[in-house]
Amino acid sequence: MADSFATPKSALVDLAQQRMRTALPDHDWSLRQKVALTCRILFDAGHDSGLAGQITARAERPGTYWTQRLGLGFDEVTEDNLLLVDEDLNVLAGEGMANPANRFHSWVYRARPDVNCIVHTHPPHISALSMLETPLVVSHMDLCPLYDDCAFLAEWPGIPVGNEEGELISAALGDKRALLLAHHGQLVATAGVEESCTLAVLFERAARLQLLASASGRIREIPEPLAREAHDWTSTPGRSQANFAYYARRALRAGHGDALTSRTDSPEDGPR
Amino acid sequence: MADSFATPKSALVDLAQQRMRTALPDHDWSLRQKVALTCRILFDAGHDSGLAGQITARAERPGTYWTQRLGLGFDEVTEDNLLLVDEDLNVLAGEGMANPANRFHSWVYRARPDVNCIVHTHPPHISALSMLETPLVVSHMDLCPLYDDCAFLAEWPGIPVGNEEGELISAALGDKRALLLAHHGQLVATAGVEESCTLAVLFERAARLQLLASASGRIREIPEPLAREAHDWTSTPGRSQANFAYYARRALRAGHGDALTSRTDSPEDGPR
Amino acid sequence: MADSFATPKSALVDLAQQRMRTALPDHDWSLRQKVALTCRILFDAGHDSGLAGQITARAERPGTYWTQRLGLGFDEVTEDNLLLVDEDLNVLAGEGMANPANRFHSWVYRARPDVNCIVHTHPPHISALSMLETPLVVSHMDLCPLYDDCAFLAEWPGIPVGNEEGELISAALGDKRALLLAHHGQLVATAGVEESCTLAVLFERAARLQLLASASGRIREIPEPLAREAHDWTSTPGRSQANFAYYARRALRAGHGDALTSRTDSPEDGPR
Amino acid sequence: MADSFATPKSALVDLAQQRMRTALPDHDWSLRQKVALTCRILFDAGHDSGLAGQITARAERPGTYWTQRLGLGFDEVTEDNLLLVDEDLNVLAGEGMANPANRFHSWVYRARPDVNCIVHTHPPHISALSMLETPLVVSHMDLCPLYDDCAFLAEWPGIPVGNEEGELISAALGDKRALLLAHHGQLVATAGVEESCTLAVLFERAARLQLLASASGRIREIPEPLAREAHDWTSTPGRSQANFAYYARRALRAGHGDALTSRTDSPEDGPR
Repeated sequence: MADSFATPKSALVDLAQQRMRTALPDHDWSLRQKVALTCRILFDAGHDSGLAGQITARAERPGTYWTQRLGLGFDEVTEDNLLLVDEDLNVLAGEGMANPANRFHSWVYRARPDVNCIVHTHPPHISALSMLETPLVVSHMDLCPLYDDCAFLAEWPGIPVGNEEGELISAALGDKRALLLAHHGQLVATAGVEESCTLAVLFERAARLQLLASASGRIREIPEPLAREAHDWTSTPGRSQANFAYYARRALRAGHGDALTSRTDSPEDGPR
Repeated sequence: MADSFATPKSALVDLAQQRMRTALPDHDWSLRQKVALTCRILFDAGHDSGLAGQITARAERPGTYWTQRLGLGFDEVTEDNLLLVDEDLNVLAGEGMANPANRFHSWVYRARPDVNCIVHTHPPHISALSMLETPLVVSHMDLCPLYDDCAFLAEWPGIPVGNEEGELISAALGDKRALLLAHHGQLVATAGVEESCTLAVLFERAARLQLLASASGRIREIPEPLAREAHDWTSTPGRSQANFAYYARRALRAGHGDALTSRTDSPEDGPR
Repeated sequence: MADSFATPKSALVDLAQQRMRTALPDHDWSLRQKVALTCRILFDAGHDSGLAGQITARAERPGTYWTQRLGLGFDEVTEDNLLLVDEDLNVLAGEGMANPANRFHSWVYRARPDVNCIVHTHPPHISALSMLETPLVVSHMDLCPLYDDCAFLAEWPGIPVGNEEGELISAALGDKRALLLAHHGQLVATAGVEESCTLAVLFERAARLQLLASASGRIREIPEPLAREAHDWTSTPGRSQANFAYYARRALRAGHGDALTSRTDSPEDGPR
Repeated sequence: MADSFATPKSALVDLAQQRMRTALPDHDWSLRQKVALTCRILFDAGHDSGLAGQITARAERPGTYWTQRLGLGFDEVTEDNLLLVDEDLNVLAGEGMANPANRFHSWVYRARPDVNCIVHTHPPHISALSMLETPLVVSHMDLCPLYDDCAFLAEWPGIPVGNEEGELISAALGDKRALLLAHHGQLVATAGVEESCTLAVLFERAARLQLLASASGRIREIPEPLAREAHDWTSTPGRSQANFAYYARRALRAGHGDALTSRTDSPEDGPR
């Protein structure tokens, strides 16, 4: 027994990654279901701020994406009331209008062909942190998915409905997955809904921890090589999917079953 | 596609405002229903502090207004247990007595014919901030409805049941929509219930963000022209109505259906 | 109309107090019901800290009082599982044993014949404040019931099961209604259950506001004469009863109906 | 009456301990039930951080222990979906894989034959505190179970899946019951599930109080002899069992009844 007590760490890391690729349960939600679930997950994680914030995901037809209807809270979004819009925010399917602040999403999708889902919200701790005009500090293992992967826009360009803001925000994001917007909120832009959703949840947690810690003392840095290793260890698609699946099950248990209007299975997905 | 990527911001702002005037869903709650819903919304937003605080709205007959009965919490107010009182707080309709601290409402209504609804509460973050005798700082886009629109009364005149306090408070408010009362709480006074309710929710959020941020660092100013533009962008009647409608639907979903005793529709208004 | 706009404040105060004596609704809960309700109210107000804390109320027979059984949380106390104990903590009625830390209650009851109910808890904000060895600061109108009415014991004498602690604590309390115990918690001792319960709720709120405010700035004093006036204005029996009745109705609505095992009325007392 | 008003403290302490050994109610949950309940209790106490954290308990066969399946949140663990693993994390019973970060549990169990249950989590206040690289401060009576019983690992060794981390962590723990891991989280290792669970709940509370207090002032020390006495007074098996039983009943009432899949009794254990 305990053959592996002498196995080097690199071999253990490889083995674990390999196992995780097959051992984690999978769900087959549709794209719109995942967008609606993301709205509910973010609601439960405290991301709502009235009617502000937009979640978008690229649709099949180039230059189009799904987003929520202006006037609905995150807790009211379902797979059926999502809008399909083009880059000019013309509504191609669905009723109502998109949030005019969606404009900078169009800019980000143009600048970043690798991005398929953008989560933009104004949760309280990120909002408070953004008033200090200081970048996010990653000083905890769990937050390493954001290590050197969270840009910072120190300038607030005003209400973000113009093309100027689209240009500014997409430039500030660069090739990162996340962006802290001073006096405004956060943006996460990744290859998929699961990744953007879970990273956005983490971002608000990171801001909360930073505020909690810095009110009491001086936050210490973590060593860059270890932080980069942790970033990569925790940023695999398998992790995002497992985290998203868990958050989604939790949201469904918490009463958000109406988000999935078309599904035929029981209101309680997965374990519990 | 994407014809609007070169459209100037001013044109985009105009277009968005125009669209929002028609695209947002509408509700037709009565005045008393809106007052009762406001009590429930504020309760859920953490505004309760025992039995303190009063919500009032001008009634049809000049010099009269609706308010809640003393002894009831915000979560107990219904459209049917509201009191109609005159400026001397004599009860014209309903059972029980009004909070004697309502007196300064009479003064504000006299001084501000444009005001039709006053929300006065002592929520925790505003209360804590008020102990520092410092004005509210607006340093986030979402808080701009309060930019240069929140007065500050640094002097606490004692329990507010006298006419002296009415005079002092209405003078301190001036022509603003909001007022921070040192060692006491907040007052919002606007043209309508929807506007006062949503601004009061925002006020407590603003105080929370200010406390969170200032415990960790120095809050940075936002540029005045952009802040003013954001103030106007976010302070339209359409916005207030959409926000109020959302908060009301949320309150009704959260179990506050009993606030609306006379309505005949289903307990769940609107989407979700 | 508005005849009272020139009425002096003292007359308005008198009138309001007079009206409040009759206008507020009344409940007729038994002593044990009020003790059980207090446990539930304090639970919902965040006072629980595992199994710590004791609520006691003088019983009819001199030298005896009601208290909860050790091993039950505040959310498990009912009018039927309370214990009747003597000053030595011998159980006269009921099953189980009292918390041995109840000993200092006996000392307080001996020293203060005017006291009929003691609430002793370790809620989080009072606990955190108590680690700083600084007295409570009353700098908000709502907190004035504690103005010059909250003593401070800066010394922590160790686990409070000895007679030494009883002597120390009852001496530190003096003739006040409340006591902040360094490195320990709070004690409220008043003439009745309603008063002790509502003052304890207020005490934790006061500590929370103090921590929130002092993390961000310097708390400013309020003028002593006004604070004393507010203390008296807010410390009437009518106020305590109205506040307690509201908190009790709220607890009953929140699912604590099982606290009242013998009552025959509907699970929802009073309005809502 | 009141014969004990002159009894010395040491005699009162002995009497109380003696009484508590018999007066507290007992439950007879199985080991796996206690592990599953611990997951639910920690979830409700705010210990969840997505899918991070592991709870383990030694199983009968030497070198094996129970742990939860990777991919499940604490609120999804039941007595039936636990895994039995060996020290190499090979799954001996159950479906799925263990968290690869469980490796350091194997090291702790080897180094500490007295330990039968390890709780490792990343709750928010401990996480924030861990970013400051400062040890836990025990300055409140209730926190004394951690007095001189909480080690500190100031160095973060990176993702904890290697044997190096197992060595480092078990060495840092030494013979204490708890360990604060900089930039990471906490570890509690004791003789039983009840003790580890309740100590972990206390640990997060301790971190929260420390952050709350130190944001507002300077935390004062408590006298060592009194702190040690309180440590021993509050660290008896009877206390742990009573606290655990209460937390478990509370979790079961809060909707976690599905954690106990095999039990035949009613969904509500014990009082309330």
